[in-house]
Amino acid sequence: MTRRSYGQACGIARFLAVLGERWTLLVVREILFGPPPGEPKRFGELLERLPGISRNLLTRRLKHLEAAGILERHHREPGGRTAGWQATTTGEELRPALRTIGEWGLRHTSDPARSRRTG
Amino acid sequence: MTRRSYGQACGIARFLAVLGERWTLLVVREILFGPPPGEPKRFGELLERLPGISRNLLTRRLKHLEAAGILERHHREPGGRTAGWQATTTGEELRPALRTIGEWGLRHTSDPARSRRTG
Repeated sequence: MTRRSYGQACGIARFLAVLGERWTLLVVREILFGPPPGEPKRFGELLERLPGISRNLLTRRLKHLEAAGILERHHREPGGRTAGWQATTTGEELRPALRTIGEWGLRHTSDPARSRRTG
Repeated sequence: MTRRSYGQACGIARFLAVLGERWTLLVVREILFGPPPGEPKRFGELLERLPGISRNLLTRRLKHLEAAGILERHHREPGGRTAGWQATTTGEELRPALRTIGEWGLRHTSDPARSRRTG
């Protein structure tokens, strides 16, 4: 049981136990929806597209998501150095949840960047 | 900007800025889906149905969700003592997101209560 775990059978609590820590869902978002679509994402690319996350935290989140069976490492060539991260089938199945979450966020909250610009 | 805010325009980040803190979504789950359906929920009922949350944390989460326009207080009689909590229209619109989250959780994670019982 992690700190995040709620010890409840409900699917929402079980989703949160795996994906509820800060930044975790945004890492998954980048893997699933970041450009170019369907391509594995390199560590440096993820770091660049998630301003505010530290290298250390990104490393921990990727390892956690790999252990949870949501992401997997992708080696472009056998034995090649360039490795990226991609979603497993379980990870791909997070697409509908991320879409409904994002739709609610766009519809019912204000854009923080825009609020800062206009005061 | 709260600690949770990611400063990103993306709807997922904006959802998480409002609903990403520990226990927050489970409080909303109880209000939306807890028994009896459609009825306001009293503080004591919520406390009982969320084993592990403290009175203090539940109070903070309810106040936060009220300030965010997701929950509102309901007074059963004008001036009456018995107050409960119910979802606003914005809160009601979290139903699809909570459903897709819960479906993923049930399909792709194991029941922590069952894992403890069977070892």
